[in-house]
Amino acid sequence: MSLNQRKRRVGILGATGTVGQRLIHMLREHPYFEVSALAASDRSEGRLYADACQWKLPYEMPEAVRTMPIFPCKPPLDCDVVIASLPSDIAIEAEAAFAAAGFPVISNSSAYRMAADVPLLVPEINPHHLDLIPVQQRERGYQKGYMITNPNCTTVGLVMALAPLQQRFGLEAVMMTSMQAISGAGFPGVASMDIIDNVIPFISGEEEKVEVEPQKILGRLSGERIEDAPFKVSAQCNRVPVQDGHLESVRVKLATPATIDELKAAFREFTGLPQELQLPTAPVHPIIVREEKDRPQPRLDRDVEKGMATVIGRIGKDPIFDFKFTLISHNTIRGAAGAAVLNAELLVAKGLL
Amino acid sequence: MSLNQRKRRVGILGATGTVGQRLIHMLREHPYFEVSALAASDRSEGRLYADACQWKLPYEMPEAVRTMPIFPCKPPLDCDVVIASLPSDIAIEAEAAFAAAGFPVISNSSAYRMAADVPLLVPEINPHHLDLIPVQQRERGYQKGYMITNPNCTTVGLVMALAPLQQRFGLEAVMMTSMQAISGAGFPGVASMDIIDNVIPFISGEEEKVEVEPQKILGRLSGERIEDAPFKVSAQCNRVPVQDGHLESVRVKLATPATIDELKAAFREFTGLPQELQLPTAPVHPIIVREEKDRPQPRLDRDVEKGMATVIGRIGKDPIFDFKFTLISHNTIRGAAGAAVLNAELLVAKGLL
Amino acid sequence: MSLNQRKRRVGILGATGTVGQRLIHMLREHPYFEVSALAASDRSEGRLYADACQWKLPYEMPEAVRTMPIFPCKPPLDCDVVIASLPSDIAIEAEAAFAAAGFPVISNSSAYRMAADVPLLVPEINPHHLDLIPVQQRERGYQKGYMITNPNCTTVGLVMALAPLQQRFGLEAVMMTSMQAISGAGFPGVASMDIIDNVIPFISGEEEKVEVEPQKILGRLSGERIEDAPFKVSAQCNRVPVQDGHLESVRVKLATPATIDELKAAFREFTGLPQELQLPTAPVHPIIVREEKDRPQPRLDRDVEKGMATVIGRIGKDPIFDFKFTLISHNTIRGAAGAAVLNAELLVAKGLL
Amino acid sequence: MSLNQRKRRVGILGATGTVGQRLIHMLREHPYFEVSALAASDRSEGRLYADACQWKLPYEMPEAVRTMPIFPCKPPLDCDVVIASLPSDIAIEAEAAFAAAGFPVISNSSAYRMAADVPLLVPEINPHHLDLIPVQQRERGYQKGYMITNPNCTTVGLVMALAPLQQRFGLEAVMMTSMQAISGAGFPGVASMDIIDNVIPFISGEEEKVEVEPQKILGRLSGERIEDAPFKVSAQCNRVPVQDGHLESVRVKLATPATIDELKAAFREFTGLPQELQLPTAPVHPIIVREEKDRPQPRLDRDVEKGMATVIGRIGKDPIFDFKFTLISHNTIRGAAGAAVLNAELLVAKGLL
Repeated sequence: MSLNQRKRRVGILGATGTVGQRLIHMLREHPYFEVSALAASDRSEGRLYADACQWKLPYEMPEAVRTMPIFPCKPPLDCDVVIASLPSDIAIEAEAAFAAAGFPVISNSSAYRMAADVPLLVPEINPHHLDLIPVQQRERGYQKGYMITNPNCTTVGLVMALAPLQQRFGLEAVMMTSMQAISGAGFPGVASMDIIDNVIPFISGEEEKVEVEPQKILGRLSGERIEDAPFKVSAQCNRVPVQDGHLESVRVKLATPATIDELKAAFREFTGLPQELQLPTAPVHPIIVREEKDRPQPRLDRDVEKGMATVIGRIGKDPIFDFKFTLISHNTIRGAAGAAVLNAELLVAKGLL
Repeated sequence: MSLNQRKRRVGILGATGTVGQRLIHMLREHPYFEVSALAASDRSEGRLYADACQWKLPYEMPEAVRTMPIFPCKPPLDCDVVIASLPSDIAIEAEAAFAAAGFPVISNSSAYRMAADVPLLVPEINPHHLDLIPVQQRERGYQKGYMITNPNCTTVGLVMALAPLQQRFGLEAVMMTSMQAISGAGFPGVASMDIIDNVIPFISGEEEKVEVEPQKILGRLSGERIEDAPFKVSAQCNRVPVQDGHLESVRVKLATPATIDELKAAFREFTGLPQELQLPTAPVHPIIVREEKDRPQPRLDRDVEKGMATVIGRIGKDPIFDFKFTLISHNTIRGAAGAAVLNAELLVAKGLL
Repeated sequence: MSLNQRKRRVGILGATGTVGQRLIHMLREHPYFEVSALAASDRSEGRLYADACQWKLPYEMPEAVRTMPIFPCKPPLDCDVVIASLPSDIAIEAEAAFAAAGFPVISNSSAYRMAADVPLLVPEINPHHLDLIPVQQRERGYQKGYMITNPNCTTVGLVMALAPLQQRFGLEAVMMTSMQAISGAGFPGVASMDIIDNVIPFISGEEEKVEVEPQKILGRLSGERIEDAPFKVSAQCNRVPVQDGHLESVRVKLATPATIDELKAAFREFTGLPQELQLPTAPVHPIIVREEKDRPQPRLDRDVEKGMATVIGRIGKDPIFDFKFTLISHNTIRGAAGAAVLNAELLVAKGLL
Repeated sequence: MSLNQRKRRVGILGATGTVGQRLIHMLREHPYFEVSALAASDRSEGRLYADACQWKLPYEMPEAVRTMPIFPCKPPLDCDVVIASLPSDIAIEAEAAFAAAGFPVISNSSAYRMAADVPLLVPEINPHHLDLIPVQQRERGYQKGYMITNPNCTTVGLVMALAPLQQRFGLEAVMMTSMQAISGAGFPGVASMDIIDNVIPFISGEEEKVEVEPQKILGRLSGERIEDAPFKVSAQCNRVPVQDGHLESVRVKLATPATIDELKAAFREFTGLPQELQLPTAPVHPIIVREEKDRPQPRLDRDVEKGMATVIGRIGKDPIFDFKFTLISHNTIRGAAGAAVLNAELLVAKGLL
């Protein structure tokens, strides 16, 4: 397949962080991509990756990156595409600079997610939002470069569950309460004194993001802009002592009636372009429904489909809304590094990279 | 004070369990009560308490109970009042047998909570429900004995928060998602393999209880029966790796408009009969409102007011309902042993014991 | 290779337990073996595996075993070889019964480990102990059947580290303090109330096993019996809130002097028959030495070489003995299921199966 | 009692840290002391304590300190005595500066612990080491000021157990393997990603301290210097996911034979000057021996005697040395804040303050 004839060379911004490490691990033997350049904060600049990075994954650091030098997060960088996982306040300048310099930028940060001309992409749900790219290039005066983003790690799992419901039944309102893993805060992130034998009912900026991102992702591209989907989201976000995997208790109010079996069918039958194109990182089943009364659980379900699926269980009638259920999504894979890689694969498949 | 002239002699059913241990600890130097008899399951019968009990509290077992023998959970028992913390299927027979034999029974189990003639008592909220006792005695043919119950450990914290809202603004709907401590499942209870680095989105029977108990507790006593309060409750219950303290993410829809400041005032000013009577176990402030953005937390807030207060924080506007907030309540103290002791104290103060 | 022409049919005793589950997972696509029969305690007998087993691994239960019925742990069983992971008190009868009935029995229990005529086998260390099998058959009157055992899960990691030291320098004394994972106690095993925010300094029978097994494993086969290696072992065993992986703080007193570099070389160069024979489950490197100051760690190092390697770090001079170091070994893989599978592979390679 | 007539005014260096918070909590209603001044790093300087401090104790911050301003860690400070809990590199200058400026300095840092003229004080063990103070003042040219120190948090528990053994039987060698709580690293300290479902076999500088401090503490004051006690200590230090309480697995080699009963008697009968003087923070029983097979445990035993006792259990014969046992000591109370307060109380009782 011609896609594979030449590997795209990837520059990673934020290479030493938790998501950067996942990216490097996911790209270590990727059919489309190879890591060609690493960039990180000023503190790491000029050091070798093995020296600058506190590697925290339970796999070995790939040999190929150990001796790669770390560059600053400014263009140029020796690569065909940039995947960025930076703090939002740094991302806002760095990502635009790379796009202006002609690089496609695949961003994991929140900096441009809600910008009207930037796709907030979930390949199973809204690949057509890529049509915003020419609009973005025209408005921002980019020649070849552009920016696309993936959602917040808590939004991804939620919106995967909402998409089939919106498509089949319409959505009116969504209540989501999260129990989020510590890896979502990066390293060092959450202090152990704060979380052992404890729960923290606060994650800075998280509820605000989850309450607006789903409506854009599930929005309709109308001309040159996206019309947000017309449902409301309420989020309460909590941090729990779990390494990986965001668990979410969800209630939904639908626009049209449905039975539990119809709901499950909608989940189980959900599929999208990544599955059709058989993108390398795409889960075979984007949604897995479990019937056991005590599933999904972070430890048992986060790694299914290599961390790219959303696992849903405990589907039942809600006394106030229509249905309640519980879902899990791996926050640093499907919610971050894997989301970016899948977005990159879609760009390749679409000829945009 | 004459209340204290003679200590009531307490028999504890389920003395070896997690709640039984808390009861023994709470009653070790109580002004109204002294433990006079211990009962537990057949397995423990006839053994000394120190031998039969796997004591799991971070305090020493009181010397006085170490050599007390364990009796079966059937009347008679050498005591003035019975406090019972038994599995529901055992409680249903045992509690009625003690009441029939003339003992006041203060129950922590779910067996009779929803029975129309049994008070589901929270002394700050519905002390007038004690007027059901003569009805109960007449209907069940009890002479001197009777049964009163306290709510499920997750319900207690929730209903403490709901009471002032219902009183001031009226309530239409309540969505509650819990993150519950492992001690709620007793010992051995939750297997460590199931909960370390994990969350379990299921607690048997819990959601069903929380969805009906608040309406009874906040119901109006009309003649000889309680009319349930007319709001709906939706509960999603999760188990988290926390020793003690149930954290709850709550949204409420009110019957009349309120501001955040009015909500906080309603919480802060809430008080009741136990405070007025200065019952020994009553918290000075039944509800404590915290303004920090990341409170309440189980580890930091569960033990305030000796585990008898409900701590509420993160009060804000909800995009769908009116308000969202987070609360914590100590599940084995306010949610179980302390609830029973406070109920017992109220009975003494009311001359019912 | 002729070894692979015909798959040996394996019966698993204790199939529903923690180790049984690991065995089923490890054998699901094994080149030498296929699972043909499952047996477990009376409680599970007659039920289908999917119904009887509380599957706790973060992988799906293999489809092939879901509908297999569970037999009692008595011969006959439809298989060529039995792998047993039973409680010791049940194993003592069941394993001998299978051996007497003509089955090779590969045991993970402690029942026969210290029996003079039963190999306590670690294929990298003492494959020649298999010469005890004819002795055992003669003494016990077995025709075709026999029993071999693998060590206690804490012993395995320790003895892997001791073997190269004994071979090169001689060993005089070993002090080992363990921090053991909860999975070592099976399911439900350790109660979460006992281990969250806690350490338990006691594991029943563990210290006694670790203090005698290494000397047998490293013993010399002299005629028809094993002469224990002449060093002493002191063990203090603790349970910590870790899912998998036993960490061990070790001090050793050698018989002849060595430098740290010589110690590291001895570890790094250690290899054995499984590596030579390239047995499917053999780790390429049985021992991995890490130079970072804070490794090995359970979460980061337990799964290296698919959980079959021993990872050693923090090697330094000891103020009292000669050296101190820290090691980790995956307790349910190298310490149990993987040990049994590797033993089975060695039997095939040796023509004993 | 004249001691109490006037409260000594205490200045706390490092007031915002984990130990500083414990100090403030322990001194909130102290009969001898009142907190009169707070100092901390430059970052906090000039702010009010309630604003600068991330209070992490499960008790409310005392009202009295909330509005106290934070001063820099340099003299003068409005107080009679300074209790310091600073990082060692800052302590080395700050503590000497306060002593030179005439303040008695009670230090929790390691900066001067091993200095020949500075007492490393454990009031139950070596109160006579206070005789070094005039030597120190003469050698360093201090007029009224002086410095005394308490041991490392891991040393304290160990040396409490060693003292009675040395006194009765003589000590030759000690092997100690620790499992230390996260609070020992301060806040934010240990990252949660590093410790949930994990153990870290490394604590910077810890083993080095534990291997030399006990010999000084148990040393003999000979003229103007301390002769170290002539036994050797080997330490291996590990961090475990526990909030508070350092657990230690210990083996000891004695100079003269002893039975287990004699060992237990030595522990149980151990007492010292703080008990004799009934100092307010002194535990009634400095050592508590537990007979249960699975004690001591951090969660159940750390808070006994308000966190000031050392709890010892699992006492048994060791196959290599003479005895093995397990002990626990509360690291931020007896191991830090409580150690400093008890030292301060002894100074008052001795007329040195």
